Amino acid sequence: MIFSVAVEVRPLEGIANPEGLTIERALPALGFTGVRGVRVGKLLRFELDAVDEHHARREVEQMCEHLLANPVIERADIHLEAVGGTQ
Amino acid sequence: MIFSVAVEVRPLEGIANPEGLTIERALPALGFTGVRGVRVGKLLRFELDAVDEHHARREVEQMCEHLLANPVIERADIHLEAVGGTQ
Repeated sequence: MIFSVAVEVRPLEGIANPEGLTIERALPALGFTGVRGVRVGKLLRFELDAVDEHHARREVEQMCEHLLANPVIERADIHLEAVGGTQ
Repeated sequence: MIFSVAVEVRPLEGIANPEGLTIERALPALGFTGVRGVRVGKLLRFELDAVDEHHARREVEQMCEHLLANPVIERADIHLEAVGGTQ
């Protein structure tokens, strides 16, 4: 089966997020007040061919451990959706 | 009202995404086959104080136009969720 996969990789609570801090400081100068707690992470989207959802999720978890995320400073949330049969 | 906001900023179709391409090329060497079409974007999360959802969405759209996304090469998708009253 083909799965549409989205992996959100974001900094753990307590880990500095300079990109978010820079955005938060820039917004008031542009007239946007009322924004706080800006955190910037990555969102990876791809298609994965796997036997079933269980295997797909396990494979994506292993990808996160080995390449996509740094577990010391980041967490990864996985979203899977079946989009079609095996090609 | 306080809104929990998530903004996904991702490259438009047809725009090169070197980070995604690098990941896609690295995965087979780590034993992960069956992955294709890797695209890497940003996911911004923050809290916004606004009168109602209509105003909140309009404000976030303007933030995207002015700071968060480059409309020439990126699209921004906005997700809003009310999480509490005005502080």
